[in-house]
Amino acid sequence: MTTPIALFDQNWILGFAEPELASLFTVDADLYEMQHFEAELAKAEAAEGLIPADAAAAIADICRSFICDKEGLRQGFGRDGLVVPDFVRQLKQQVAEPFQPYVHFGTTSQDLIDTSLLLRLQRAAVLIDAGLARLIASFDGLATVHGAREMMGRTRMQRARPVSLADKIATWRDPLLRHRQRLAEMMPRVFVVQLGGAVGNRREFGEKGQAIADRLADALGLARASTARHAERDGMVEAANWLALVAGSLGKFGQDIAILAMNEVGDVRFSGGGMSSAMTGKSNPVKAELLVTLARFSATLVAGMTQSLVHENERSGAAWSLEWLLLPQMAVAASASVNLAEQLLASLDFSGS
Amino acid sequence: MTTPIALFDQNWILGFAEPELASLFTVDADLYEMQHFEAELAKAEAAEGLIPADAAAAIADICRSFICDKEGLRQGFGRDGLVVPDFVRQLKQQVAEPFQPYVHFGTTSQDLIDTSLLLRLQRAAVLIDAGLARLIASFDGLATVHGAREMMGRTRMQRARPVSLADKIATWRDPLLRHRQRLAEMMPRVFVVQLGGAVGNRREFGEKGQAIADRLADALGLARASTARHAERDGMVEAANWLALVAGSLGKFGQDIAILAMNEVGDVRFSGGGMSSAMTGKSNPVKAELLVTLARFSATLVAGMTQSLVHENERSGAAWSLEWLLLPQMAVAASASVNLAEQLLASLDFSGS
Amino acid sequence: MTTPIALFDQNWILGFAEPELASLFTVDADLYEMQHFEAELAKAEAAEGLIPADAAAAIADICRSFICDKEGLRQGFGRDGLVVPDFVRQLKQQVAEPFQPYVHFGTTSQDLIDTSLLLRLQRAAVLIDAGLARLIASFDGLATVHGAREMMGRTRMQRARPVSLADKIATWRDPLLRHRQRLAEMMPRVFVVQLGGAVGNRREFGEKGQAIADRLADALGLARASTARHAERDGMVEAANWLALVAGSLGKFGQDIAILAMNEVGDVRFSGGGMSSAMTGKSNPVKAELLVTLARFSATLVAGMTQSLVHENERSGAAWSLEWLLLPQMAVAASASVNLAEQLLASLDFSGS
Amino acid sequence: MTTPIALFDQNWILGFAEPELASLFTVDADLYEMQHFEAELAKAEAAEGLIPADAAAAIADICRSFICDKEGLRQGFGRDGLVVPDFVRQLKQQVAEPFQPYVHFGTTSQDLIDTSLLLRLQRAAVLIDAGLARLIASFDGLATVHGAREMMGRTRMQRARPVSLADKIATWRDPLLRHRQRLAEMMPRVFVVQLGGAVGNRREFGEKGQAIADRLADALGLARASTARHAERDGMVEAANWLALVAGSLGKFGQDIAILAMNEVGDVRFSGGGMSSAMTGKSNPVKAELLVTLARFSATLVAGMTQSLVHENERSGAAWSLEWLLLPQMAVAASASVNLAEQLLASLDFSGS
Repeated sequence: MTTPIALFDQNWILGFAEPELASLFTVDADLYEMQHFEAELAKAEAAEGLIPADAAAAIADICRSFICDKEGLRQGFGRDGLVVPDFVRQLKQQVAEPFQPYVHFGTTSQDLIDTSLLLRLQRAAVLIDAGLARLIASFDGLATVHGAREMMGRTRMQRARPVSLADKIATWRDPLLRHRQRLAEMMPRVFVVQLGGAVGNRREFGEKGQAIADRLADALGLARASTARHAERDGMVEAANWLALVAGSLGKFGQDIAILAMNEVGDVRFSGGGMSSAMTGKSNPVKAELLVTLARFSATLVAGMTQSLVHENERSGAAWSLEWLLLPQMAVAASASVNLAEQLLASLDFSGS
Repeated sequence: MTTPIALFDQNWILGFAEPELASLFTVDADLYEMQHFEAELAKAEAAEGLIPADAAAAIADICRSFICDKEGLRQGFGRDGLVVPDFVRQLKQQVAEPFQPYVHFGTTSQDLIDTSLLLRLQRAAVLIDAGLARLIASFDGLATVHGAREMMGRTRMQRARPVSLADKIATWRDPLLRHRQRLAEMMPRVFVVQLGGAVGNRREFGEKGQAIADRLADALGLARASTARHAERDGMVEAANWLALVAGSLGKFGQDIAILAMNEVGDVRFSGGGMSSAMTGKSNPVKAELLVTLARFSATLVAGMTQSLVHENERSGAAWSLEWLLLPQMAVAASASVNLAEQLLASLDFSGS
Repeated sequence: MTTPIALFDQNWILGFAEPELASLFTVDADLYEMQHFEAELAKAEAAEGLIPADAAAAIADICRSFICDKEGLRQGFGRDGLVVPDFVRQLKQQVAEPFQPYVHFGTTSQDLIDTSLLLRLQRAAVLIDAGLARLIASFDGLATVHGAREMMGRTRMQRARPVSLADKIATWRDPLLRHRQRLAEMMPRVFVVQLGGAVGNRREFGEKGQAIADRLADALGLARASTARHAERDGMVEAANWLALVAGSLGKFGQDIAILAMNEVGDVRFSGGGMSSAMTGKSNPVKAELLVTLARFSATLVAGMTQSLVHENERSGAAWSLEWLLLPQMAVAASASVNLAEQLLASLDFSGS
Repeated sequence: MTTPIALFDQNWILGFAEPELASLFTVDADLYEMQHFEAELAKAEAAEGLIPADAAAAIADICRSFICDKEGLRQGFGRDGLVVPDFVRQLKQQVAEPFQPYVHFGTTSQDLIDTSLLLRLQRAAVLIDAGLARLIASFDGLATVHGAREMMGRTRMQRARPVSLADKIATWRDPLLRHRQRLAEMMPRVFVVQLGGAVGNRREFGEKGQAIADRLADALGLARASTARHAERDGMVEAANWLALVAGSLGKFGQDIAILAMNEVGDVRFSGGGMSSAMTGKSNPVKAELLVTLARFSATLVAGMTQSLVHENERSGAAWSLEWLLLPQMAVAASASVNLAEQLLASLDFSGS
C-alpha cells in the first residue's frame, strides 16, 4: 500500500492516540505477533510430540529474525482477502526444506489473525486502562482542591439547583471506575488464544489440541480457551462495547466542559484552546469537542461490530473482515479519548476567581 | 394514546416475546412500579425521620390502590415531555391534604422513571436469562442425541472439512453460557436504585440520603448505589449491549439453520415452517430468518443507546428520552429471539435419515 | 396482539405525530390497502383478460366490505412470519367458490405487503412535506418580523461574531426547502407499484405482466415500474434517508433553540415549556430536546435500513422483515419532528425585549 | 503523523479502491485543493475590488508552488483541532509582507476545509459513477450472452420457481441505474462552493459576498450557492447516503454470488478465488464476501453521518469533525466496492456447462 493516509482526513485521530497504542495497529506489529504465534505454536506442538523438536527450533529461530516482503503480502491480500497464505509461503521459504511441512502446522489463517489481533487489543486495553487510572487520580486530585466549590446545576439545559464541583467530578469519574471493573471481568473471557484449525474443531491436532492450545496461550500471555471462537464473536463485540463505553463516558465529560466554558456560562476557563483562522484571540475548546466527536464515532462503529455477530457457518469472511475495519479504529479512538481527556483536564481552571 | 399499534408493522415482534416480558413495557407496568417507588420512598423517608410515619402510611396505602387517569397522563406527557409531573399531581389529589407535601418528597422525575425502568429491565433480564438456561439445556440435549453426526464444515461459504454436529452446537451454545456469566457480573452494577433529587446530589435528603436510598433499594430489590446515575448512563448502555449480544448470538444460530436447511444443503430439516401465499407446499424457515432480523435490529439500536452516553449537564432530556425509544424494544427483541430460538430448535430434525 | 404498547415507553412518539400519519401504521390501515390492492389487481387482470370479469367484480366487491378476523391474522403471522397467507385464506372464504381461484391471482405476499407499505409511506411523505411547507412559511414569517435582529453568532461553542436572526432562520429553513426538492425527485422512483409474482419476474401473468402492473399502478396512485423491486431495496432506503434528513435538520433547530434558551444566553424565550416534578417554576425546553432525540433516533435507525440492502436471492425474509421494524418508526418520528418543530416555533419569543 | 497505517487492519480497503480516488484522501490532495481555494479566492476578491490585483496575483502565484511544512501542520492540528490556522500562517510567510493581509481574506477554516472536501468528493463521485456505468455495461453484456439461461429462483432461502439469469442481472443492474440518476440530481445541490466567513453570513465581504462566491464556484468547478452551508449538513449526508446506497447494492450482488457459488448450489463458478492457508485447492469467493463487508461497513458509517446533522450554532466542531472520520472512508469503500464488483463479475462463469 503505497498511498499514505491523510493527516487531516480519516485517520487524524491516530495523532491523538498514545503512540504505543497507535503502533499496535501497524503492519509491523501485526507481523510481529503473527511470527510470535507461529514460533510459539511450533514449540507447543513439539512439546506435545506433534512435530519434531528441531523443526520447532528452526521455525522459532526464523520467526525471530524473519523480515517479510510486504509488497508480496500486499499482493497476496488483494488476491486472497487475507495476508496469511502469502505470509506462510514466505515463511516456509526461509525454513530449511525438511522442516517446511511443520510451518503453520495444523492451523489456519483465522487462528493467526485473531490471536494477533487479540494480543494487540489486550495490550491496547491495558494501555487504555492505565490511562483511566491516571484520569481517575486526576479527577480525585481536582476534587480535593476545588471540589467544595458550588456551581449551578443544569437539567434539561436550564438552571436548576446548586451542585458542588465534587458532584460534577463524581459524574465524570465514577463511570471510569466501573469501566476498569468491567475490563477486569472481561479479560479472561475475551483475550483468549485462538487455535482451531481449518474448521475450528482442532482435529488437525488429534488428541493434543487442548494441550497445545494451553501451551500456546501461556506462552503468548492470553487466557486459555477450550474451543476456538472462529464463529463466536461475542468476545470481539464485548471488547468493542468496552471501547465505546470508554469513549462515550469521556464524551460526556467533553460535552460538559464545552458548555461550562461557554462565554455566557464561564464556570470553567481553559488554556491552550484552538486558534481560529478568522478571529485572532478566540480560543476554541477543541479537545472538549473532539471528545464528543470520538464518542459519537465510537457509538457509530459499535453497531457494525454487533452486526458481525451474525457469522454464518464455520467462518464468514464477510462478517470477519468487518471487524478489521472497525475494531482497530475503536481502540485508537478510545486511546485518543483518554489522552484528550487528560490534556483537557490539565488545561482547566476551576478556581473561579 | 388512542392509536393502536399495527400488528404487522413496527411492533409485531411483541407477539414473539415472552408475554410476561412484553407486559413489562406497558403503561400499567410502568405505573405499577412508579407507585411502588413512591410508596417505598415514603416508608424509607419515614423510617429515617424525614417525613411523618402517618404520612408515609397514607401515601403507601394510596399507592397500593390508586388507579391513574391515563388520559391526564397522556396530556401531561405531551406538555411536560414526562409523565411524572401529572402523575404526582394526581397522586397528591388522592392523599389527605396534610400529607400532600410528603408525596414525592425530595425526589425528581428521573428517580422515578429510571428506577421503574431498571426494575422492569431487571425482571426482563431474569426472564431472558432463564430462556438462555433452557436453550443451553436443549442444545446439550441435542448434542447428546445427535452430536456425533458428521457434517461438512463450511468456511467462507465453501465446503471445507468435516465437523461434528456437536462442534456446531458448541458454537451456538457457548456464547449463551458467556452471556449468563456477563449478566451475573453486571447485575449489581447496572440494576441499582436511582435516588438523587432534582440535580442528582441528594441534597434534598440532608444527611439521610444514603440511608434512604439503601432502604429503598432493599425494599425494591435493586442493588444499592452510593450516587444517582442521572447523567452516568453506562449502566443503561451495558444492559443494551447485553441484549444485543443475546440477539446477535441467536442470529448466528438462525443464519446457520437457514443455510443448513437450504434444499441444496439439506443438513437439517424443519417442521412448522411458514407458508407461502404464492406456492403451496413451500415451507419457509421463518423463525430462522426472524432471528437474523432481530439480531440486525438490535445491532442497529445499540448504536443509539451508545450515543446517549453523551448526556450533557446534570440531566439531558434529549439523551435520556432516546433511551426510552430504544431499550424497551431491545428487551422485547431479545426475548423474542430467545423464544424463536427455542421454537426453532424444537422444530429441527437432525436425524439425517 | 393483546398487549398494549406503553405510553411512556417505546411508542410515545406516536402521540406527537400527526394523527392521520400515525393512523397509517395501524393494522386497519394496512388491511385497507391490502384489500385495495387485491381489488384493483383483480380488476386489472380482468381488463387484460387474465381472469373473468365477474370474478373480478366479485372480488372487488368483497374487498370493499370485508372485515378481517384479526386474531386469525395474528396467529397466521406467528406461524408464517407474514400475514398474507391467512389474509388470502380469509378472503377466499368470502368469495363465491367459482371465483376463489382468481383471488390473489398470480401475485405473492411481497407484492401485497410492499405495495401497501409504499402507499402508506407515500401518503406519510405527502403529509410530512405539507408540514415542511408550513414550517418554511412560518420561518419566513418570523424572518419578516424579527429577521433584522442582531445576535451573537457562536462557533465551536464560543462567541464569535454577530449574525442576524434572519441568518439563523435561513440555516433552519433552507435544508427544508432542499428536502422538499429531494422528495419531488424521488417520488416517481420510490413510490412505485410492486407486482412481481412468486419470484419477482411476473411469469404468472404471461405477456400481460406489464399491462396489469401499469393498470394497478394507475388505479392505486403509484408510479409505474417495469419490474418488481422485491430484492432491490434502494427505494425503501432512499425513503428512510429522506425521513432521517427531515428529522435531522429539525434536530439542529431544536439543538439551537435549547442553547439560545439557556438562562445564561437568553437569546430567545419560550412559552409552554415542560414542568418539573421537583422544581416549580422551572420551564423546560421539552420540545427542543425532543427534536434532538428524534434526530438521533432516526439517525440510528437509518443504519438498519441501509443494512437491509444486502438482500439475498429473490427474496430475503431476514432483510425484508427488518424494514418493517424500522420504516414505520422513522415515518412517525419524522412526522413528530415536524409537529414538534411547528409547536416549538409558535412558542418562541424572539422580540428580545 | 509518523505512524504508518496497517495494511491488514483498518485501512486495507484502500488497496481495493481506484488509485486516483484513494489519492484524493491524502494530505497532499487536501493541501492541493486548499491552495487552489486560496488562489481562486484571492483572484475573485481582486476581480470584485476587495483586494488589490497585485496581492491576488502574488497569492495565486505562491499557491501554485508552495510546499507546506507538514510537520508544522501536524503540530497545528494537534493544537487547533484544524490544520487551517497553521496552513494560513505558513502561507502568509511565503507572501511578500505588503500582501500578507490579503491572504485568506474574509474567509474562515470551514470555507477552506469544506470546499476542499467537496471538490474531492465530487471527483470521487464522478469516478464511482464512471465505474457504475462500466458495471452496467458489463451486466448488459452478460445478459446478452447468458441472460436466457434458466436457474432456480430462491425466496426465503428455499427453492421457489425458475428465473432467467437476465432476471437476476436486472436485480443487480437496475439499482445502479437509479444511483446514477440520483447522483445527477444531487450534484448541483451537494457539490457547492462554501464561502461564508467567520460565522457563515459573508459579512466580511460586504456587498460582494455573492459575486465572489459565484466567481469562486465557477473557477473551482463547483455549483454556486446563495449561502454557506457551515451548519447545514444535509448535503454532506446526502453524499454519504449515496455512497452507502452504492456499496449496499453491490453488497447484494456479492451476497448473491456467494450463495450461487456454494458447492451445493453451483449456479456459477468463479476463477481467481482466494487461497486458504489450511486447505490447498479450496477457492474462496473473497471478492463476493468483501462486497458484503463493505456494504455493512458503509451502512454502519452512514448512521454517524446522519448524527452529524445535529450541528449546534453557527459551527459545531464536534459534529463537523465527525464527518472527517466517516466520509472519506465511505468514498473509499464505495470505490472499492465498484472495483471488486467489476473484478468479481469478470471472474464469473455462468455458462453452466
